[in-house]
Amino acid sequence: MTNQTITAPKGFQAAAVKAGLKHSGALDLGLIVADRPCTAAAVFTTNKIVSAPVVVSREHVRSGKLQAVFVNAGNSNACTGQRGFRDTLAICRQVGRALNIDPHRILVASTGIIGEFLPMEKVRSGIEAALAALRYSPQAGGNLARAILTTDTKKKTAYRKIRLGGKTVQLAGIAKGSGMIAPNMATMLAFITTDADISPALLRRSLSQSAAVTFNKVTVDNHTSTSDTAVVLASGLAGNTRITRQGTDYQKFHQALWQICDDLARQIAADGEGATCAVTVRVTEAANPREAHQAVRAIVDSPLVRCAFFGADPNWGRIVSAIGYSGARFNPDKLTCKVAGVTVFRNGRPTPFNRSQLSRKMKARQWQVHVCLGAGKYEDFCYTCDLSHGYVTINADYHT
Amino acid sequence: MTNQTITAPKGFQAAAVKAGLKHSGALDLGLIVADRPCTAAAVFTTNKIVSAPVVVSREHVRSGKLQAVFVNAGNSNACTGQRGFRDTLAICRQVGRALNIDPHRILVASTGIIGEFLPMEKVRSGIEAALAALRYSPQAGGNLARAILTTDTKKKTAYRKIRLGGKTVQLAGIAKGSGMIAPNMATMLAFITTDADISPALLRRSLSQSAAVTFNKVTVDNHTSTSDTAVVLASGLAGNTRITRQGTDYQKFHQALWQICDDLARQIAADGEGATCAVTVRVTEAANPREAHQAVRAIVDSPLVRCAFFGADPNWGRIVSAIGYSGARFNPDKLTCKVAGVTVFRNGRPTPFNRSQLSRKMKARQWQVHVCLGAGKYEDFCYTCDLSHGYVTINADYHT
Repeated sequence: MTNQTITAPKGFQAAAVKAGLKHSGALDLGLIVADRPCTAAAVFTTNKIVSAPVVVSREHVRSGKLQAVFVNAGNSNACTGQRGFRDTLAICRQVGRALNIDPHRILVASTGIIGEFLPMEKVRSGIEAALAALRYSPQAGGNLARAILTTDTKKKTAYRKIRLGGKTVQLAGIAKGSGMIAPNMATMLAFITTDADISPALLRRSLSQSAAVTFNKVTVDNHTSTSDTAVVLASGLAGNTRITRQGTDYQKFHQALWQICDDLARQIAADGEGATCAVTVRVTEAANPREAHQAVRAIVDSPLVRCAFFGADPNWGRIVSAIGYSGARFNPDKLTCKVAGVTVFRNGRPTPFNRSQLSRKMKARQWQVHVCLGAGKYEDFCYTCDLSHGYVTINADYHT
Repeated sequence: MTNQTITAPKGFQAAAVKAGLKHSGALDLGLIVADRPCTAAAVFTTNKIVSAPVVVSREHVRSGKLQAVFVNAGNSNACTGQRGFRDTLAICRQVGRALNIDPHRILVASTGIIGEFLPMEKVRSGIEAALAALRYSPQAGGNLARAILTTDTKKKTAYRKIRLGGKTVQLAGIAKGSGMIAPNMATMLAFITTDADISPALLRRSLSQSAAVTFNKVTVDNHTSTSDTAVVLASGLAGNTRITRQGTDYQKFHQALWQICDDLARQIAADGEGATCAVTVRVTEAANPREAHQAVRAIVDSPLVRCAFFGADPNWGRIVSAIGYSGARFNPDKLTCKVAGVTVFRNGRPTPFNRSQLSRKMKARQWQVHVCLGAGKYEDFCYTCDLSHGYVTINADYHT
């Protein structure tokens, strides 16, 4: 079995254990540990209310160096005040001491219930067990991919291999997304390992540019979590000449990292809570980038539009009217809308199409909405999913 | 039986008939006709894509004079190009000729399916029948209140009586809201009659100020329709001294008109598609009015929050995190959140409360969410409802 998990890039071990944080008793706590300090970059939620782990991790990654990642599901350690910070720092100390790593080189990511303290006894025992279970094996990497899930129905993984100056460089990623635990919010986490040798500045640049057009283009319910974290660790053990400028090697690396992020982002959208289909919404010919974004968001943030996706209903009226209130300029004589490859509205007018045939196309797992505003040359897109009974069930039928 | 319908104010007749525009065969076309030209004011959708009736009616009300209102449900005559305009004007001509009214003094409101032409033969016969059915009776007013409904489950009416300088002045209103027909969008219509004598400028002022804090505070699915219309006709037959300045009489009249609009707006929110409860969301102590609005909208536009309403789940985490990404400033040490009268988050920290007791309170038909930002002196609010399985069913389970 070829290892395509996050332990595939050279220099990474992983482990996942059942610490008793998930009510289901499934894997819920894990570690990624590098053989040596890695070049690291991370992006975090833009929510002003952030969990203690986000505050601490943001500080720790500032140096551009990390050597380990702690992650738990079941409890996000958000809105937990001073004790939340103490618990986060205690995790860093425990992991650091056991592995002889500077505690400031550890990133902590917690997802799950908000407003409850971490059960630190369970966490401490879980860390002990995880430390003992650390392996370079694909099993260890695969287990961690499962441990971070919450209401996700599928493991989310991505892998790329590139050649840089005759050396093989690997990148691997795992993610969780749009899951909920108990009375909580959707949270996205992504952990990416690579054995590339690259400067901190360029790794940061590549990650933030990639995240902007991948993770930040996913919306399931336009509710930004307090815990979103995406981090990449580069061990440098591939033996490539260190990437220190934006030349060919950087372009190749950046392309691969972007693909990893894009893979994971699409998997998150496709596995959105209750989702029966993944829909990419594209808006082209906007007057400026802001209006392209506004038009995309008006469409994907409309529950009416997303219910029509669920019903496989080629309802151009909802899409076109969303454009109408989006604030984006459009040319009324050029406004055009395609659903699942079929033009339903052309040059400002409804156009005849076979409804039942198109409805069948919308029952596919993946398809696209494309709106052309005819007002300029800018475009934007978003990965989303339909709004189904399943979404309401997951998010309402929790009874406190 | 005291007449409290839109035919109660002096000088108004109404009629509603079954023209065959609704598949259900229910009442679907109606008229309001005044004995004489009325002072009139109207507000319309802010969507850039508007129906032909909105374009025509906006022009007709510009003069400040109207004498009749035509309304139909079942077809919104939106995205119907030139023919849509011809049909709208034909309606004005037919009604005007029959009643000897200038066609420019007629307002047309159509709600229902988008992108299909009005079946003009049915409309013409319907108008004939409605003209013959015009009455000053409460039955006629009540029938019209029913004719304008689409997926609404309840008739929406409001009535006020005030005394101005020894004269009795009546105001009555009907509305429909958040209904859908076939593959369509939510639409709000409101028709208000009064026998007050008031100048066009003050009537406009009173309606636009009232709409801003009532109809414009309702959100069911943050999807602005192409057909929203609210109109008020003042016959002047109450015999009060004409209101021409912002004195006591104007204040009394404005108070009553605002109450009519507020009544109708609350009824629309409570009867939102699939709604099981009506929730008023208030944000106080914002740094400025814009941020108060942003904070309110972040809460009510979150499907996660509205699913929690449906589940009667006192999920302060979703509310507080929505504030976190709203863009509104808040004092982290003062942020406080009350749900259905119970404080669940105080001064930036979760606070203990009886979950099952609070969950029972959230099962009431009406309750409030109150968030205090502790950042200033401004406030805003919104009338909304929960996001239920019913909403998804209504908006997805239409199969083309």
